[in-house]
Amino acid sequence: MKILIANPGSTSYKCKLLSVPEYETVFQATVERIGDANGIYTWQWGNETSNRNELHITDYNAAVSLTLHSLQERIAIEGLSAIGFKVVLARYITGCVELSDIVLDAMKTYQPLAPVHTDAYLTAIHAFAQVMPDIPRIGLFETAFHSEIPPEAYLYGIPYEMYEKYGIRKYGFHGASHRYVAEYIQNHYAADMDDVRIISCHLGGSSSVCAIRNGASVDTSMGMSPQCGLLNAKRVGDLDPFALLYLMEQEQLTIDATRELLNTRGGVLGISGISGDVRDVESAMKKGHEQALYAFKAFAYAVKRYIGEYLAVLNGTDYIVFTAGIGQRSPVMRAEILKDMDQLGIILDGLRNDSVDNEGLISTDDSPVKLIVIPTNEELVVARAVAGYLNRVRNSKHLD
Amino acid sequence: MKILIANPGSTSYKCKLLSVPEYETVFQATVERIGDANGIYTWQWGNETSNRNELHITDYNAAVSLTLHSLQERIAIEGLSAIGFKVVLARYITGCVELSDIVLDAMKTYQPLAPVHTDAYLTAIHAFAQVMPDIPRIGLFETAFHSEIPPEAYLYGIPYEMYEKYGIRKYGFHGASHRYVAEYIQNHYAADMDDVRIISCHLGGSSSVCAIRNGASVDTSMGMSPQCGLLNAKRVGDLDPFALLYLMEQEQLTIDATRELLNTRGGVLGISGISGDVRDVESAMKKGHEQALYAFKAFAYAVKRYIGEYLAVLNGTDYIVFTAGIGQRSPVMRAEILKDMDQLGIILDGLRNDSVDNEGLISTDDSPVKLIVIPTNEELVVARAVAGYLNRVRNSKHLD
Repeated sequence: MKILIANPGSTSYKCKLLSVPEYETVFQATVERIGDANGIYTWQWGNETSNRNELHITDYNAAVSLTLHSLQERIAIEGLSAIGFKVVLARYITGCVELSDIVLDAMKTYQPLAPVHTDAYLTAIHAFAQVMPDIPRIGLFETAFHSEIPPEAYLYGIPYEMYEKYGIRKYGFHGASHRYVAEYIQNHYAADMDDVRIISCHLGGSSSVCAIRNGASVDTSMGMSPQCGLLNAKRVGDLDPFALLYLMEQEQLTIDATRELLNTRGGVLGISGISGDVRDVESAMKKGHEQALYAFKAFAYAVKRYIGEYLAVLNGTDYIVFTAGIGQRSPVMRAEILKDMDQLGIILDGLRNDSVDNEGLISTDDSPVKLIVIPTNEELVVARAVAGYLNRVRNSKHLD
Repeated sequence: MKILIANPGSTSYKCKLLSVPEYETVFQATVERIGDANGIYTWQWGNETSNRNELHITDYNAAVSLTLHSLQERIAIEGLSAIGFKVVLARYITGCVELSDIVLDAMKTYQPLAPVHTDAYLTAIHAFAQVMPDIPRIGLFETAFHSEIPPEAYLYGIPYEMYEKYGIRKYGFHGASHRYVAEYIQNHYAADMDDVRIISCHLGGSSSVCAIRNGASVDTSMGMSPQCGLLNAKRVGDLDPFALLYLMEQEQLTIDATRELLNTRGGVLGISGISGDVRDVESAMKKGHEQALYAFKAFAYAVKRYIGEYLAVLNGTDYIVFTAGIGQRSPVMRAEILKDMDQLGIILDGLRNDSVDNEGLISTDDSPVKLIVIPTNEELVVARAVAGYLNRVRNSKHLD
């Protein structure tokens, strides 16, 4: 069977066609600058040379149609088993589910918690419903991996009835990536271990840390929304609620304007004042830019703090894993995060760290905690979940 | 010299007269239910039997006058060297300073960050200015002990200009208590140590954890306001900023109403639904009250998380100290916080923990991290700071 994984951004769209059960990439495509006169479309079959085209891509439907048009050159798209989406969150719904109107409504209810991502997904899902209505649209929620977090970790100090009435609690995100890390470590490093403890650091444009025990998330740094915890590229991270109210009052911000500010002008961009991209920040820092240094150190410090939290929650750890853009490709950030932690059994090997790009061990041989870099693969986790869903549906129909 | 330490609450007022340099309590008094027809006034000289009177105490000035009237029975109040106040915070001002109009204005600017406490202090300071204008009024800010926290720990992920414009950053509180813990451990337990690392847990109606290295705070759990970090009795603690905005939108709350809710209906009271007092929560929990169990566990879990953070920040610790109401007197809470931390060198001795009340060692003899309960003494820290301030002023006048 073939599953198309759709990965929409606010002005971009990526997709990947995977064959099941091999989970090999048959086709992948990227559409950038949707709505812009100078749109860019790139696509690639398997390991063949990639193709590139510049053209005006009017809207999201056009972007989706463009990629389906390429697909149809070699594949009967009616034969697609499903479109899989790595959806963010929905009120009272998680797991891997068919994206029915009820689910879409529940996503809309929580849209204010992750407005940019939710809008992009709703647009993309709508585009597929129009362009190829008969192919099932299945979503794996980013919150799903965290659904076993205990009440002491997910309850906020607000009136309990507000939790009951609106579902205001920690949900956690990056579930596909943290699940991939958990499975990868279990399979490749800890196959013979019983009680595996992992602290998974997904560090990129959007970042979170997750405490994993025996394959399940027990706590994570994001909250009800993906806007707290670590600094993100342009999103705020942890913030004293009374500092937020003070800021709103001083700047006379509405709730919508506050969300806009914390979503687009905060995080690494906010502190550095120059960019949300840690690569830009590192290079400015080397030239002596003071705010860039603060942003770099504040990012690393927050990751270090959360590693500490989860050491306490897990009573130590066996593995600390770094993944996603920054985690895979910034040895200087990994070194800043992990410096001076030897008394906690965490000993970075400087040479290994400098030479590892994308994947490898970066701790010393005698470090009690193994430090590992791995490339995440969220599409694979979504495709597996979607395939599992389709098989369950098929089996239940056989039983009828 | 004699220093009167004034400790105002919203409807109560306590004071203590200390002799310097002995720092012995000469006199102490408590006024409760100010403004109420059934006010209660208790006072005590040294170790003599305490006195109690029930009467109508019209306002704060009356409460202050009442205590000064008792004082005058034996002491010429004109001979008081100063009134010392453990003030909360002021914009751009910290340390131990004379409470001039400039300082009071700076306190008013940040009043929305700690409205209840700031209002009580402003009222008390005003009462003293009226009742005995010639005695200097000196404040030790609760933020003072944390003034060396580095930028990576105090900067939030908001636009840097908001930090510059409004001073929106972490300040930290409970400075007098954490400083007392640092000095006490240094003097009584670690006199021969060079690099002393302490995690100080001030757990009471208001709670915070502080990471201390060589006598200085390097990070702490409260933020710009005393409303984040751990759960407090009725105050919120950490909260996802987008969850807060969502709550405001759903309940159509103004900024003032939001502050009121987070200040009076959150924390341990919010989750338990029954009380902000951990003693009530523990007793309800034993009777099977589910929300009480959640509140108890959530409180302990947050302390555990912050202990973990500061283990990471300090590269391990030598001491973990528990102080204030809950820290000194709840063995069941201490046990919940410290359970399953042996892999981090933290081993609680159950018998010692159960038998210690107010002060003592509660770790096993072979626990690498020493766990200690001590009674805090914030008045002593304020009195010392005030005496130091007066001596500096006197010396600088001699130099003129």
